[in-house]
Amino acid sequence: MKPIPVSLGDPSGIGPEVIAKAWAARDEHQLPPFFGIGDRRAIEAVWSGPVAQISDPEQAASAFHKALPVMQVDDADHIVPGTPTVSGARCALHSLELAVGLARSAGAEALVTGPVAKAQLYAVGFTHPGQTEFVAERCGVATSNTAMMLVGPDLRTVPVTIHMPLREVADALSIELIVNRVRTTERGLIRNFGIMKPRMAIAGLNPHAGEGGSLGTEEIEIIIPAVEQLRAEGIDIEGPVAADTMFHERARATYDAAICLYHDQALIPLKTLHFDDGVNMTLGLPIVRTSPDHGTAFPIAGQNKAQPGAMIAAIKLSADCAAMRSKLGL
Amino acid sequence: MKPIPVSLGDPSGIGPEVIAKAWAARDEHQLPPFFGIGDRRAIEAVWSGPVAQISDPEQAASAFHKALPVMQVDDADHIVPGTPTVSGARCALHSLELAVGLARSAGAEALVTGPVAKAQLYAVGFTHPGQTEFVAERCGVATSNTAMMLVGPDLRTVPVTIHMPLREVADALSIELIVNRVRTTERGLIRNFGIMKPRMAIAGLNPHAGEGGSLGTEEIEIIIPAVEQLRAEGIDIEGPVAADTMFHERARATYDAAICLYHDQALIPLKTLHFDDGVNMTLGLPIVRTSPDHGTAFPIAGQNKAQPGAMIAAIKLSADCAAMRSKLGL
Repeated sequence: MKPIPVSLGDPSGIGPEVIAKAWAARDEHQLPPFFGIGDRRAIEAVWSGPVAQISDPEQAASAFHKALPVMQVDDADHIVPGTPTVSGARCALHSLELAVGLARSAGAEALVTGPVAKAQLYAVGFTHPGQTEFVAERCGVATSNTAMMLVGPDLRTVPVTIHMPLREVADALSIELIVNRVRTTERGLIRNFGIMKPRMAIAGLNPHAGEGGSLGTEEIEIIIPAVEQLRAEGIDIEGPVAADTMFHERARATYDAAICLYHDQALIPLKTLHFDDGVNMTLGLPIVRTSPDHGTAFPIAGQNKAQPGAMIAAIKLSADCAAMRSKLGL
Repeated sequence: MKPIPVSLGDPSGIGPEVIAKAWAARDEHQLPPFFGIGDRRAIEAVWSGPVAQISDPEQAASAFHKALPVMQVDDADHIVPGTPTVSGARCALHSLELAVGLARSAGAEALVTGPVAKAQLYAVGFTHPGQTEFVAERCGVATSNTAMMLVGPDLRTVPVTIHMPLREVADALSIELIVNRVRTTERGLIRNFGIMKPRMAIAGLNPHAGEGGSLGTEEIEIIIPAVEQLRAEGIDIEGPVAADTMFHERARATYDAAICLYHDQALIPLKTLHFDDGVNMTLGLPIVRTSPDHGTAFPIAGQNKAQPGAMIAAIKLSADCAAMRSKLGL
């Protein structure tokens, strides 16, 4: 397959370090060829291994076996690991744009994005809630038809709502939103993972899934009607299930993805089990897009403390999913 | 130590079965002497092992090695496992009252309560939200000075709010409530577990612990002020920490208990890790009170499917904590 573009993310974050460490571990983890997109100086500031500057993705395949290929994006001024700057944010944004453009123009089949600092991006005019929404827009897909999936070796979760205060979650839920996310999840499980009859389970919002209405009514008014509508479409979904009973080993064996109602309901079990190798994946796009499920981690940047496990998992997953799509013709 | 009273809970639930199975496994798990309180017919309906009816806790110690001792409570009419009845609920309530009375009168040092069905209890005039509040009242302790702690081999969590709809959680939080729960938790860790300098971590309410106020303000307005007040008292507490980053193995090593803001935030990580041996413990009482962290499970009652792991863990923990209190004189 074609080499996978990996945007470095914020040049002062841990993105450059984990990409370099992933390259160093390429044989051990049997990683497919990939290349960085960003400012090579961000890598050289934290890593002394070989870097090969390339100008075209085609050059990455041959360069990969003896150096980390990087397509240069020049915007960053003086780079200090751990200290984000406006010029660094601009570099991160341009790296992301270039990576998406390559994936969209069929210069690549998949895309991995390194961690960015949202506050910094906003300062350079970025108007999307996050990279996910940016990638969706560039792909011409409405955000409501995408879904964020967290993927670990033993668990996949999809939050229906994501970055909002907890007190707003109940009012943000609707039958339509749940139905859209579940449909997107089902299609995503088929085309990316080759699970032809996906089984899903949806959590309750309230303790004990509302205990028949005595601990909250969203199960009765929103979640159960959504589940009934989805089942009428032939989708295999169980629930609402009491959220605390959904994530132990025997429960996980009963579904391919857990549909959760809010950020921490999806992220707590995922990161409890898979803190070091969780991958954030965007479903519903014409391209495969993954990201390591961690942030810029400025406080440890440049200290050789960052673990590349999640970046390695993100690169592998993007390649596996791209191969599955190609095989299925989906 | 004195034999531990274990209320059978609802006679049609899995309480009688798991208590009998715990007794059968007493040697394997080195369980201290205990005795059931309830209707022995509930046990005989699901288990063919030896039962010894006793009339005084003193008799339990000598009976324990060759039969499961039971103090008889007669209220239940015809018992059908899996089918709760009003008379069964009355029996469960009287069993609980007797067990608490024994613990309060120093006929016992600790107390284990089997699972009850709240809807059934309400039908016989029970006015407390749950067994925890009932036990607190009988011990003369205000519920606000108690805390529910979930205990597993690798994790302890304490929810600040418990059985309420998720949409009400944000408004239910206050500095005072958090401070009270944390103080109770600190004392509980000292006297029950012998951790003389307890370390605690408190979760954020919102995604990413509010991300500096952009994803919710409760961290800034409530949680941080509570943490500052507690630290001024000399209590060792970190946070608010992004909830999804608190429960992986390295994070768990940094605290003795995680303070959570709502039911599922505490229960999801606990049951993800310890579904079969989680114990629910009430802190802040003059007595030790534990309970297996599962419900009546009516759908599987009487089918020999119930796992006794949580009941075994609840009995062991109650004995360990009673011994620690006795040793410390606290």
